[in-house]
Amino acid sequence: MNYSEEKKEQLNADKKQMLIGLHLGNGYGSQQGAWRMPGVDPKSYTSFDARVKQAQAAERGKFQFIFLPDGPGAVLADIATEAPAFNLDVMLTLAAVARETQYIGLVATGSTTFNEPFNLARQFKALDVMSHGRAGWNAITSSGEDVAANYGKRIPSSEDRYGRAHEVIQLIQSLWGSWGKDAWIHNQETGEFANRNEILPINLQGKYVGSRGPLYIPPSEQGQPIIFHAGGSPNAYELAGRFANVVIGAAFTIEDAKAQRNAFRESAKSHGRNPDEIKYIAGLMTTIVKDRRTALDRRIQLAGDSLVQRLGYLQQMLGIPLNPSKVDEPLTKAQLDTARLSRYDPRSANALKIAQEGWSLRDILAHGVIDYHPVIVGPGVEAADHMQAWFEAGAADGFWISPDVNSDGIDAFVDEVVPILQERGIFHQDYEGRTLRENIGAPEQYGIDPRV
Amino acid sequence: MNYSEEKKEQLNADKKQMLIGLHLGNGYGSQQGAWRMPGVDPKSYTSFDARVKQAQAAERGKFQFIFLPDGPGAVLADIATEAPAFNLDVMLTLAAVARETQYIGLVATGSTTFNEPFNLARQFKALDVMSHGRAGWNAITSSGEDVAANYGKRIPSSEDRYGRAHEVIQLIQSLWGSWGKDAWIHNQETGEFANRNEILPINLQGKYVGSRGPLYIPPSEQGQPIIFHAGGSPNAYELAGRFANVVIGAAFTIEDAKAQRNAFRESAKSHGRNPDEIKYIAGLMTTIVKDRRTALDRRIQLAGDSLVQRLGYLQQMLGIPLNPSKVDEPLTKAQLDTARLSRYDPRSANALKIAQEGWSLRDILAHGVIDYHPVIVGPGVEAADHMQAWFEAGAADGFWISPDVNSDGIDAFVDEVVPILQERGIFHQDYEGRTLRENIGAPEQYGIDPRV
Ligand SMILES: Cc1cc2nc3c(=O)[nH]c(=O)nc-3n(C[C@H](O)[C@H](O)[C@H](O)COP(=O)(O)O)c2cc1C
Ligand SMILES: Cc1cc2nc3c(=O)[nH]c(=O)nc-3n(C[C@H](O)[C@H](O)[C@H](O)COP(=O)(O)O)c2cc1C
Repeated sequence: MNYSEEKKEQLNADKKQMLIGLHLGNGYGSQQGAWRMPGVDPKSYTSFDARVKQAQAAERGKFQFIFLPDGPGAVLADIATEAPAFNLDVMLTLAAVARETQYIGLVATGSTTFNEPFNLARQFKALDVMSHGRAGWNAITSSGEDVAANYGKRIPSSEDRYGRAHEVIQLIQSLWGSWGKDAWIHNQETGEFANRNEILPINLQGKYVGSRGPLYIPPSEQGQPIIFHAGGSPNAYELAGRFANVVIGAAFTIEDAKAQRNAFRESAKSHGRNPDEIKYIAGLMTTIVKDRRTALDRRIQLAGDSLVQRLGYLQQMLGIPLNPSKVDEPLTKAQLDTARLSRYDPRSANALKIAQEGWSLRDILAHGVIDYHPVIVGPGVEAADHMQAWFEAGAADGFWISPDVNSDGIDAFVDEVVPILQERGIFHQDYEGRTLRENIGAPEQYGIDPRV
Repeated sequence: MNYSEEKKEQLNADKKQMLIGLHLGNGYGSQQGAWRMPGVDPKSYTSFDARVKQAQAAERGKFQFIFLPDGPGAVLADIATEAPAFNLDVMLTLAAVARETQYIGLVATGSTTFNEPFNLARQFKALDVMSHGRAGWNAITSSGEDVAANYGKRIPSSEDRYGRAHEVIQLIQSLWGSWGKDAWIHNQETGEFANRNEILPINLQGKYVGSRGPLYIPPSEQGQPIIFHAGGSPNAYELAGRFANVVIGAAFTIEDAKAQRNAFRESAKSHGRNPDEIKYIAGLMTTIVKDRRTALDRRIQLAGDSLVQRLGYLQQMLGIPLNPSKVDEPLTKAQLDTARLSRYDPRSANALKIAQEGWSLRDILAHGVIDYHPVIVGPGVEAADHMQAWFEAGAADGFWISPDVNSDGIDAFVDEVVPILQERGIFHQDYEGRTLRENIGAPEQYGIDPRV
């Protein structure tokens, strides 16, 4: 092999690759109408079979993790016509998935505000052991009054929420580490079950929570679960910079994502960490269908009447009156010329860009311009292009994907987007290992981080 | 068919049958030495495969339920030589078992003292949905300071523990019932997901806990999980009489068990319930081997040195000095004549009875006379006789079995004891249905009991 070939291989091996996660919410998919789509089991909300199948589809696509957000318990939907937003129970679902997958990471939200830390510590570590080192804990503070009401409480101040979160995460990492790496002897010959000197109480007592410990669970194949975080306030940067290896983000533009990613990296640095230890994962919603027109029609079918009801909001984004009786016509040249982007909504520029391409009002809305993440409605290459552009601009270390409808939307992504990313060398061909730490490139961890 | 044959069939059909549960603790078995036995996987403590296999063995034997006690988190053992007493995580274990069994009930302890009730409600109901109606919640108050220390707390007074327990169970049953029986429409044609009028907040606020709800989980095939209880104080009778369908008991003699059973039945009556709605389940530890001698040898192998270390305690039970250098000899006639039973230990009479049969000191101990439930060390028929005697004396509605070593002890019980009980007509030939309520004979339940 000549010099330049060697060099090329070298470059390819060094090439940074993105991470991909799958958002598994209520099980139907991210579009409100998903539960009604032909081919969808309307009882999918309570179907653990369906959840397992969806995780297996993501594993086929070599996704690094599945992510289950959680209130817990809030519905965030009009239950008369919409499915609850969250999973029935995130830990039991991940337990089922753990038994029926082999590589994919298992990540769920666990509120630091409304859980006893010992209980959280135990369940995530047990999941980590059960999955042979694939657990991740999205350690967030709860901010919804509807969630607080499930506990007969109000949402505490931001200071108290984050104060407690710092204590809870530290305490839980200590409990995870209370059973040392080589503590478990289980030698049937000598009768030594464990090395008592390597199983230590933690004796933490803070302002908000305390625990003596130890936690009687030996380390998993990755040591202990990985900390994820999701949030965008200065307090969130501070918490994630201290503890998190992965941030589940939400940003509409490359500029916004870059700014968020940098803020998390700076915070990690200020805690003495290498900023590459914290991965910023941007959101992406997908309707992957062979061509744009067919994809838009699928979105129109999914949304039903609710699509046109959003015209008023589009009007605000573009700063021009829109006529509901002309939903199937594009904007006129006069309308396009007088459009003024809303300062309050970062999605406005994208909406105008789509409008300028000449799509009808209905089609503009079907592009998902008012959804809560960037949306790809079209063939796989459009998603691949979006992801590559963000990734190479330093706006994200990866993406968490919310398919429109899970039952076929995960497969569509796996079959139509993943191969393109792999061909371009920006997504791995196969899992690097069996643990989540190996697959996202985080070091093993035993005990708490000595720097904190 | 003539009158008497008809009558006989009638009698058999009416014949009361006992319930059987399997105690699944740390996974090795109830004897301390179980983890060291040949054929036992020394890593069974963290093996969900092993736990599933054990539950499947019990299901082959038509056991009505498996029962996982929980601290949570206390070890109750000298970790240097013994395995922790409890399961890694009871809910994740039951989730794994739920996916890989079809009929057996899934029961775990959940502390009313150290859990947020909303979290408990959600996990048990999700387990109930996941298992298609097979969940039971052993609602106890925590009484160990080692458990409290995991939460940075002390054990509250009995009054506060039981005061909170009453509120927690009521609140949880209300949350379970907050999604009415027919609330979930999921009609893809009409687009009606759920009947909003049948999904109601619970708006409970007590002295100890509160919740607005609702819980967004539809009913399972049995409506909602069954309440179990375990405890023996007047407060426990009161709590169980109000809420429980099953009591996990501990008694050494028929008289004691009868008294306990009656106390629970009286308490149920005082709450306006039919006393048959509460089943008292007595404990039984088993070493089932073809003959007594081989069974004793197995126990001796299991116990190792720890057996003879208990001689001092046997001495107290019998009120006579015992010579450690003569452990392989039976008691002399003079010793037997002067023995005085300890007033403080109800197990003493049984110990003396065994001693009078002429067994050596080592063999007396190997009979398990100091274990924490009655123990059968011998062929299956001895267990069947014990169970029949207690059952027919009205001392128990069933038994929870703690095999010495799970890896072969469950199969031994299933193969050697169950067929005898079935032949005698006092244990069912097959599951009555798919739900735990069907299999223990409890009515479906939606919402909270209107009488409370
Ligand atoms: C992408 C993303 C995902 C989130 N996922 C959850 C979640 O699963 N559960 C939750 O309670 N909050 C979730 N949050 C909310 C945050 O944890 C946080 O409470 C919220 O952003 C309010 O921010 P602040 O508390 O820092 O002011 C998420 C936020 C973002 C941006
Ligand atoms: C057979 C039996 C099983 C029990 N199982 C548990 C258990 O799994 N977890 C637990 O914390 N306590 C358990 N207990 C303890 C009781 O819940 C209770 O706390 C204890 O008996 C003290 O009684 P009191 O609190 O009524 O005074 C059990 C008790 C009995 C008799």
